[in-house]
Amino acid sequence: MQPRHRTGPPPQLRNETTALTSFHLKSYLERWRREVNQALRRSLPADGGSDGIIAAMNHSLHAGGKRLRPILCIAACESVGGRGEDSLPACCALEMVHTYSLIHDDLPAMDDDRLRRGRPTCHVVFGEATAILAGDALLTKAFGLLADHALSQPPEKQPIWLRTIRHLARAAGCRGMIEGQMQDIHSEGRRLKMEQLERLHRLKTGALIRAAVSMGAEIGMATRQEFVALNTYAEKVGLAFQVQDDILNIEGDPGKLGKNVGTDLERGKNTYPALIGLEAAKARAVDLVTEALRALSIFDTKTAPLRAIAEYVIARNC
Amino acid sequence: MQPRHRTGPPPQLRNETTALTSFHLKSYLERWRREVNQALRRSLPADGGSDGIIAAMNHSLHAGGKRLRPILCIAACESVGGRGEDSLPACCALEMVHTYSLIHDDLPAMDDDRLRRGRPTCHVVFGEATAILAGDALLTKAFGLLADHALSQPPEKQPIWLRTIRHLARAAGCRGMIEGQMQDIHSEGRRLKMEQLERLHRLKTGALIRAAVSMGAEIGMATRQEFVALNTYAEKVGLAFQVQDDILNIEGDPGKLGKNVGTDLERGKNTYPALIGLEAAKARAVDLVTEALRALSIFDTKTAPLRAIAEYVIARNC
Repeated sequence: MQPRHRTGPPPQLRNETTALTSFHLKSYLERWRREVNQALRRSLPADGGSDGIIAAMNHSLHAGGKRLRPILCIAACESVGGRGEDSLPACCALEMVHTYSLIHDDLPAMDDDRLRRGRPTCHVVFGEATAILAGDALLTKAFGLLADHALSQPPEKQPIWLRTIRHLARAAGCRGMIEGQMQDIHSEGRRLKMEQLERLHRLKTGALIRAAVSMGAEIGMATRQEFVALNTYAEKVGLAFQVQDDILNIEGDPGKLGKNVGTDLERGKNTYPALIGLEAAKARAVDLVTEALRALSIFDTKTAPLRAIAEYVIARNC
Repeated sequence: MQPRHRTGPPPQLRNETTALTSFHLKSYLERWRREVNQALRRSLPADGGSDGIIAAMNHSLHAGGKRLRPILCIAACESVGGRGEDSLPACCALEMVHTYSLIHDDLPAMDDDRLRRGRPTCHVVFGEATAILAGDALLTKAFGLLADHALSQPPEKQPIWLRTIRHLARAAGCRGMIEGQMQDIHSEGRRLKMEQLERLHRLKTGALIRAAVSMGAEIGMATRQEFVALNTYAEKVGLAFQVQDDILNIEGDPGKLGKNVGTDLERGKNTYPALIGLEAAKARAVDLVTEALRALSIFDTKTAPLRAIAEYVIARNC
């Protein structure tokens, strides 16, 4: 029998999480990562084309990501009574949009990162022009596969999938993730206030995490009340994720992270620890997760995965 | 009274076009360019944000384009009995995708062009990072506005708009426009065969032109037979457009074109005149337009705009 495994929550969270002891987060993550990876390979099969664009797309798509957004989408869908499998097309679209954003962020004109998750970045392997196009192609494919899936559905389900396209476009667009990236560029070398830093993260990483949960909620046919609660959950988890990222850049293990640590400090980046100190940042992460869990109080036990993911977000070491 | 105006067809085309003498192409183009520009401004209003992303998007979106794809979409919609106005959301999406592709093509890592239509390119004005993001944002917005529009429609119309999203994603994606751009990059410094050059153009510029016509046909609720005929028309017009572009790069007036001429020859680019000679290229353009017009023979008089646009494509001087 496989041993039960879960990452223990920080002591402050214990009261919120006693219902979870029977939930296996590790096997849940493993199962759905595998399903998502298979769905991604079906969506974008290596096609033997000689131009290398699919190879470049797949290089970054299968670079060992955590699949956090897809898994949040699945867990949100399940939390309102939907079937996780039904949200796989949305999972693929989310991961393609996330991957495109990483490819473009890593470009020399942006963050100029040569390594991600321990592997050379897309432009290092395939050249800058191909990397730009691979990002463009992943973004385009994300919308195309949602439209294809929508058209394969019975008419009464099509509005659900149209709404997933709308969630994704808003989250990824010029008043979502891209606005966050612009703010990040503009904040280089400037010291931000706490509200400004949170606004940046709400857009840069938070918008797509919220979209993941909203898309899962749509597919699971959430009620209005469930939708609002899930949105609050996603908002808090998205910020907690970023705080933990900042903490890991100080305390993390480069081997496990697949990237160097201490780089934020070197670059003078605006981070939670830089603005409020490391201990206050850790306390903020715990508060955010507590608030995320509280938002789920309207639900029954189907939120075990969402609860465990919220805890994992700040307990993770990579 | 406004004088009747139309660009005269080359003498070889006269027999095909006698039905057109009462159609005012110039006023048609002017009317619809104005409508498309207004619709674009409504879709992407300057929002006073301080990050400059909307300004960068609008800089390239309103740089004096011909709006060929939107006008083909409108004319295709009308040719099957639809209302041109109804296709304006598709027109905006098409022009946003076209503009994003120009912004990314002009980047230093790609063609490194500093001027387009006589104006500095996006990355010259706003910097490379913002230009990459402005392209990304336009691509995202294109899908978002189609989804928004679809959701504003009655349920029976939603599949039409889902199909426009599918047409656009396929045309713009890694087996459409992006594949063409990859082939273009790989063909630098290599002499292509005629079939290879046509395949490149069918993808790089042809795919989006075909999508424009297909989207208009969907919105106008074309029959299967009309759809096939319009697709042939679009295929031929798309290639003719490219042949004429190559010809203008030799014979055009830099003042009217807003860009330098002779650059293809300098760069050793694969062009129709380079492969088959200038006169044969001109004959090829005429043949393609003749074939385009022939494909329209199944229609009644509502194809006057499509016919006039086909002629304009090779009669234009900019």
